[in-house]
Amino acid sequence: MIIDIHGHYTTAPKALEDWRNRQVAAIGNPSAMPKASELKIGDDELRESIEINQLKKMKERGSDLTIFSPRASFMAHHIGDFSVSSSWASICNELCYRVSRLFPENFIGAAMLPQSPGVDPKTCIPELERCIKDYGFVGINLNPDPSGGHWTSPPLTDRHWYPIYEKMVEYQIPAMIHVSTSCNACFHTTGAHYINADTTAIMQCIQGDLFKDFPTLKFVVPHGGGAAPYHWGRYRGLAQEMKKPLLREHLLNNIYFDTCVYHQPGIDLLTKVIPVDNILFASEMIGAVRGIDPETGNYYDDTKRYIEATANLSAADRRKVYEGNARRVYPRLDAALKKQGR
Amino acid sequence: MIIDIHGHYTTAPKALEDWRNRQVAAIGNPSAMPKASELKIGDDELRESIEINQLKKMKERGSDLTIFSPRASFMAHHIGDFSVSSSWASICNELCYRVSRLFPENFIGAAMLPQSPGVDPKTCIPELERCIKDYGFVGINLNPDPSGGHWTSPPLTDRHWYPIYEKMVEYQIPAMIHVSTSCNACFHTTGAHYINADTTAIMQCIQGDLFKDFPTLKFVVPHGGGAAPYHWGRYRGLAQEMKKPLLREHLLNNIYFDTCVYHQPGIDLLTKVIPVDNILFASEMIGAVRGIDPETGNYYDDTKRYIEATANLSAADRRKVYEGNARRVYPRLDAALKKQGR
Repeated sequence: MIIDIHGHYTTAPKALEDWRNRQVAAIGNPSAMPKASELKIGDDELRESIEINQLKKMKERGSDLTIFSPRASFMAHHIGDFSVSSSWASICNELCYRVSRLFPENFIGAAMLPQSPGVDPKTCIPELERCIKDYGFVGINLNPDPSGGHWTSPPLTDRHWYPIYEKMVEYQIPAMIHVSTSCNACFHTTGAHYINADTTAIMQCIQGDLFKDFPTLKFVVPHGGGAAPYHWGRYRGLAQEMKKPLLREHLLNNIYFDTCVYHQPGIDLLTKVIPVDNILFASEMIGAVRGIDPETGNYYDDTKRYIEATANLSAADRRKVYEGNARRVYPRLDAALKKQGR
Repeated sequence: MIIDIHGHYTTAPKALEDWRNRQVAAIGNPSAMPKASELKIGDDELRESIEINQLKKMKERGSDLTIFSPRASFMAHHIGDFSVSSSWASICNELCYRVSRLFPENFIGAAMLPQSPGVDPKTCIPELERCIKDYGFVGINLNPDPSGGHWTSPPLTDRHWYPIYEKMVEYQIPAMIHVSTSCNACFHTTGAHYINADTTAIMQCIQGDLFKDFPTLKFVVPHGGGAAPYHWGRYRGLAQEMKKPLLREHLLNNIYFDTCVYHQPGIDLLTKVIPVDNILFASEMIGAVRGIDPETGNYYDDTKRYIEATANLSAADRRKVYEGNARRVYPRLDAALKKQGR
């Protein structure tokens, strides 16, 4: 089985965006605020939005199951207050849940949290628990910068975030550390802010000792870990200067890297530098980079091709990357699959 | 000849730091502000600070000449106002100039600019011209984020920066895009802010069309270009979606990458992905990562070893990386070397 641990619902019916636009327009004007019940999307619409998009590509490329969460760039936690984020997260998570019910063999959910800048993360717990308990979601996306490119929250190692971590440990769910749209003109959303956030998160974990407090906490750092594997020598050296343990002990019991790196040399580096047990297959398809690479004739984000082609992985390694590691890092996914007899 | 295009005066005599501390303490209290003339550092002190540090390592490792600029993390453009930055830049540049006079075969200067958040970059031009004309410097360091991790300036493609670019073109000097200390707790200075800034700068150049306005402008992106080479497929794909030309045309007539990547797999990737004509040898020694890699027994920042060991470069390619490219990208360096008969 091939599990893609990083997919977002980027192809939701347009009614969702229209509802969001109405919500954003109504900020500061409560009487104009749309109700959740005003969003009407039928099962047929949901089914079609998946069948002609993600599911089609999954079949073409040969992956079986996607861990599916709301569109990352649309989370936009910087917009409005907690109440705005809360309604929006609830709607987006419910749609992913419905997709997982319509295609139970192909999709399982991961939750967007109703984060809001300056608001205590513990306010996210009711939505988190609803997604885990009622929707059977297997992970969450945690935005380390709900300000959208201004980085006004404390580092991930700060106690500020501990209420979320306590729930993650309690429910055995990993967090993908994933920012949303940048509203800072310096940072292109998918070209700078996403990648910078990945790098930043890893460096925060090197500086801190978070995993001493939470030995079973698990972070998935998307987009191949930002710059970290390419600069792994720098990070090993910085940890050494800070008198931290070797990164293998200091980070790699708790941090995992996805394979959203869109060319062969990048995947070759990732699989050379990072131990295979810490690499999880992912494509973030249909996402930031949707075109065909003229150098190969294949989709940039068809990352399975790079995994297949790299000389760094054995057949057994590939099985770990495709399935075994995901089942280990996402125990609720493993349990759900076993329940399906898979 | 082996030219290291990225060295900072990180080992300046302690009197410099003491003067800076007095300056910072006197902000808001003009009567306490120290004068430049109160900083006394003799030639013997300068000589020793170099001989037992950078020059010793250059001889051990086999490089001949370093393009030498003030300590990047100490630029701290976010501290004080333009007047504070102006005095500080002037002092720091003068020290690098004096080093270049004491060791004319081994060091040549690149200027720190007296940037200050919210201040028009054209205020930097007098110091820039002084360094080029009076000190024989061959390049500048341009900080895309003088706020120190808050990213309050416009992107590098904005007209805000054009006064600097006009002078760069006039004097045929490249800019290394180099941030300074982060005062944002989210970003570790050398582990996150530096690398993020490199990635950010490249993405800004992909989004914009700066090099249409300045076809001969040259940027050197340090630290191996941040995350960009590792994610080169992503960047090619994003440029494609934005209907930009191929990155080879859109960026690579104007953007160069240094080799400050502190392990073999990183240099292997850089030299595989980026055309050899765009790679300049550098170590940023003595800098962020000063230790010995237990996996190799060698200094992390002894980047020449990685260049020597990579299978991606021929002997002719290595000569380009070590010397030829630097002479081409820094025409004033080439002229200065020719004047020395080199």
